[in-house]
Amino acid sequence: MRQTFDETTERAFGARHLPLIRKAMSEQALDGFLVPHEDEHQNEYLPEANDRLAWATGFTGSAGAAVILKDKAAVFVDGRYTLQVRDQVDEGLFEIRDLVEGGVPAYLESATQRGQVIGYDPKLHSPDALARLKSAAEKTGAVLKAVAANPLDAAWGSARPAQPVAPVLPHPLAYAGEDSTAKRTRVAADLAKKGADAAVLTAPASIAWLFNIRGGDVIRTPLPLSQAILRKDGSARLFLDPAKVTPDLPAWLGNEVSLETPEALEGALADLKGQKVLVDPGQSSAWYFDTLQSVGAETVRGEDPCTLPRACKNATEIEGARKAHVRDGGALARFLHWLATEAQSALPDEKTVVQTLEAFREGTGALKDLSFDTIAGAASNGAIVHYRPTERLNKRTEAGSLLLVDSGAQYLEGTTDVTRTVAIGEPSREMAERFTLVLKGHLALARIRFPAGTTGSALDALARAPLWMAGLDYDHGTGHGVGSYLGVHEGPQRISKAPNSVALQPGMIVSNEPGYYKTGAYGIRIENLQFVTAADEIEGGERPMLGFETLTLAPIDRRLIVVDMLSGEERAQMDAYHARVLREIGPLVDGDVARWLAEACAPL
Amino acid sequence: MRQTFDETTERAFGARHLPLIRKAMSEQALDGFLVPHEDEHQNEYLPEANDRLAWATGFTGSAGAAVILKDKAAVFVDGRYTLQVRDQVDEGLFEIRDLVEGGVPAYLESATQRGQVIGYDPKLHSPDALARLKSAAEKTGAVLKAVAANPLDAAWGSARPAQPVAPVLPHPLAYAGEDSTAKRTRVAADLAKKGADAAVLTAPASIAWLFNIRGGDVIRTPLPLSQAILRKDGSARLFLDPAKVTPDLPAWLGNEVSLETPEALEGALADLKGQKVLVDPGQSSAWYFDTLQSVGAETVRGEDPCTLPRACKNATEIEGARKAHVRDGGALARFLHWLATEAQSALPDEKTVVQTLEAFREGTGALKDLSFDTIAGAASNGAIVHYRPTERLNKRTEAGSLLLVDSGAQYLEGTTDVTRTVAIGEPSREMAERFTLVLKGHLALARIRFPAGTTGSALDALARAPLWMAGLDYDHGTGHGVGSYLGVHEGPQRISKAPNSVALQPGMIVSNEPGYYKTGAYGIRIENLQFVTAADEIEGGERPMLGFETLTLAPIDRRLIVVDMLSGEERAQMDAYHARVLREIGPLVDGDVARWLAEACAPL
Repeated sequence: MRQTFDETTERAFGARHLPLIRKAMSEQALDGFLVPHEDEHQNEYLPEANDRLAWATGFTGSAGAAVILKDKAAVFVDGRYTLQVRDQVDEGLFEIRDLVEGGVPAYLESATQRGQVIGYDPKLHSPDALARLKSAAEKTGAVLKAVAANPLDAAWGSARPAQPVAPVLPHPLAYAGEDSTAKRTRVAADLAKKGADAAVLTAPASIAWLFNIRGGDVIRTPLPLSQAILRKDGSARLFLDPAKVTPDLPAWLGNEVSLETPEALEGALADLKGQKVLVDPGQSSAWYFDTLQSVGAETVRGEDPCTLPRACKNATEIEGARKAHVRDGGALARFLHWLATEAQSALPDEKTVVQTLEAFREGTGALKDLSFDTIAGAASNGAIVHYRPTERLNKRTEAGSLLLVDSGAQYLEGTTDVTRTVAIGEPSREMAERFTLVLKGHLALARIRFPAGTTGSALDALARAPLWMAGLDYDHGTGHGVGSYLGVHEGPQRISKAPNSVALQPGMIVSNEPGYYKTGAYGIRIENLQFVTAADEIEGGERPMLGFETLTLAPIDRRLIVVDMLSGEERAQMDAYHARVLREIGPLVDGDVARWLAEACAPL
Repeated sequence: MRQTFDETTERAFGARHLPLIRKAMSEQALDGFLVPHEDEHQNEYLPEANDRLAWATGFTGSAGAAVILKDKAAVFVDGRYTLQVRDQVDEGLFEIRDLVEGGVPAYLESATQRGQVIGYDPKLHSPDALARLKSAAEKTGAVLKAVAANPLDAAWGSARPAQPVAPVLPHPLAYAGEDSTAKRTRVAADLAKKGADAAVLTAPASIAWLFNIRGGDVIRTPLPLSQAILRKDGSARLFLDPAKVTPDLPAWLGNEVSLETPEALEGALADLKGQKVLVDPGQSSAWYFDTLQSVGAETVRGEDPCTLPRACKNATEIEGARKAHVRDGGALARFLHWLATEAQSALPDEKTVVQTLEAFREGTGALKDLSFDTIAGAASNGAIVHYRPTERLNKRTEAGSLLLVDSGAQYLEGTTDVTRTVAIGEPSREMAERFTLVLKGHLALARIRFPAGTTGSALDALARAPLWMAGLDYDHGTGHGVGSYLGVHEGPQRISKAPNSVALQPGMIVSNEPGYYKTGAYGIRIENLQFVTAADEIEGGERPMLGFETLTLAPIDRRLIVVDMLSGEERAQMDAYHARVLREIGPLVDGDVARWLAEACAPL
């Protein structure tokens, strides 16, 4: 079994580790130290060795920060984690503050004093975030100082796990669909167009995509932690721990890519003296900007040039995604059948739910990893959007309530991410009505056609409108991009309230996942992945339109659908989706599961 | 009659004026000169004396620019004006280029040479636009130079009209709803919060709002062209041509507002030495930033602090808007009755349509001005989004086609803006179907409820979705803000595809005006004004929601509605709107008009 139910930190971490950090701070004559959640790779998932915030505070959320001063400290979390942080962090040692409202800058303004020296590790902060922190510290007369050696790492010492050295493997053309030379030529042409001589690439997903390689340095995502420099002639230098290099790798990378050690990176940046170098301030830390400036290179701030081409999947990747979703659909059908039958009386706990689903996915024989820890939220746990079951929180499903299961798999052909909400026992009328409102939003977003140039932000309200009309809403985005056997959260596109200026383009995969959460009672979310495609020709239409093709194939619990609340169009759309699920998944299952699937997919 | 049908420029303007401008350029040793559409007030409407782009080129669109070099010149317009510019501008003298794609910067990069000196008038360019132009010129080695005296103005010479000196009058509390002292105290508190000692205000609408005054310096909008400095204690200096000052004005402004001449402005900026001064780079030209910097003031870039409070109408202004719309609705009922009866056989020309509507509005006895030149587009002219009938373009309405009329009025109580599309003779099935799609979008936006924090950008797709599903769209925004007896286009809110980060807030007025345009055939637009309000309580709802209350009261042509295409909800919404129109406007009309109105407002 892959998913664990352990808690990786303790509330006592603060009491145990703060004194060590303060001692290391004082050895560097620092009055304070900034601890962001981000690590050197500015990546969503961190290897344990880089989860400094968790080690210092106990807090394990996916975003946050801490400021450690000599005599006090604060932890900063956003609205998603206000409950979790109080559970994980010792409030006697850390003041809990809002990461968004005021955040670290406001704290620095109120808690620092003239003459104080606050340290930061320049490899962990984006240049823009750092500029805001510096200007806040200036207001009190405190000074922010880059440290050469991170005092927290010194404090962590020999207890700190080693950096991961998972083998890096070629990602075959049968899955990638475009060879690295072609990709590098394409991206290099874009560099030249932007007037840049080279680009520094630090996003692991970009490196994985550009060189057609996959690794395993961080959990749930086949990423190789590494850095690269791409020149405008398409040649590149790739900086990779030799311990990760597998025998076939050098030949796979070819002559135009030199494989070098991470220690060679700083010298390679110095080689860029006098050149224009594209660096993405959203992906690369201040250290890159500082270093390039100090060697006399000119930095050009701009988006990582792999971000957009990576997001637009090619025909092979789309075909792979379809295959991966059919395979995943088979496992999901077995799982949902189990939930609809045995589980209805057995009332399994969340851990069993997670393990059962995982076993069905293992049964495909193709599972490389989960794409994230499965969220199985029974009853009131379903209302906690960022819930993950642990031994301590684990709860049994309850008759007369809902079970929300958000899960995904990594297959070589593609990455999946699906949420289904299932009735356990007899759902209440309210549950079904609210489920149906969520479904209406999901269907509206799935069937929309839209002109080229439309952003995800422009479509977000379509998924929310049925809930809004009922005085309801949900506090998360509606859709995120998904990688191709890469990260389950991938930019640059996004469907959310937050403004996003990236137009949806053919080949982009996005999730469609509206929800509704009743605190203390139950949670609802319906999530399919879908990819952007040219819409079928419309009779009488004048403009080419884009649309979505749904990838995810799993029945939606009909016991939760109030058919009277659907329009004729919505009902037909729902029936067509279920018919397609039966057509594509039916051949993968037999016996009871097949019989159940046919019923689950019958017209409403 | 107020609206004229003259053309104010000629194609020959270029041939006549370019040599004069080039001569004035050479007297200042300039190799080129930049001519933006914007004037010193960065306002939408310009007095004739400041429409330098029109005088130089003949082009009269509401946005654009020209670059005049020694041996060539170019005019820049956006997609709305590609037809109009070829009609108005001599292509032998001016290259026509896209204002958005590449725009002036790309032209400077391609057309200027090392050592050339290109002049610009710093009072006419925003600092951000100027920075882009400077960086483009730098690439070729050309230099942009601020001129002390505008060579175009010198060339225009005595032929240039005088600056307008319309009287500035108090805007009584009965209409404004909040006295100037209260407004200044409120805005000054916001200044202090932002750490600014003062704000420089240059947007005429902000000055009109803040001091509760109205003028008439630009057509269609009761604006006083002026400038002001507001201090953080709420006191202010107002710079106004003495010729505009009416007898009651000084007392109306009170002791805390000093009335000074425009010539005193530069000295007043010098008085801000050492202070933090808020200036809006979107409203104030580079000259303000340069001048403040040169006198040793610190500029704080930020939105004009009157923009948001001005947009959120108070109870008096809302009550006034309701009254203005009922009054306007009476005039519209008479006009629409005329269109539905007499005009059906008379087939009047557009000019007559404009004049007839104007006469009905004059008949209210309260018309202060039109809020913009009426767009009456018969048949194919209706498909030209920014059409204005002139003697030359004037066209008769056609049986079997549509007439689009977009118009508005300025009343002391408020500003109106309404579009109705009316069938002349028997409309085709296609016309009615597309009208119904536009109507469905209009209704969706009118009935939506949404949580606080929602922007207009987030709602835009609701109005477009029915068209999108049919492969159609329209190339303009869905909604703009409207002033209270001020500009008919007013920020900061906006409902459009373009990202806008301003949340819709109670009291904001926005238009709801989706459309469809079939080039060479007909145009459709349905526009009501609506204001943001707290939505009625929703049974079972958990979050407070906002919604819209429709202000505009005029029947929508039922001959163009395909009832079968409406959902039950849409039909009920349409019937409720018409019932309200009849209830509120019915008492204002009698005889044939009353009988017609009852029919026009009967349930579908």
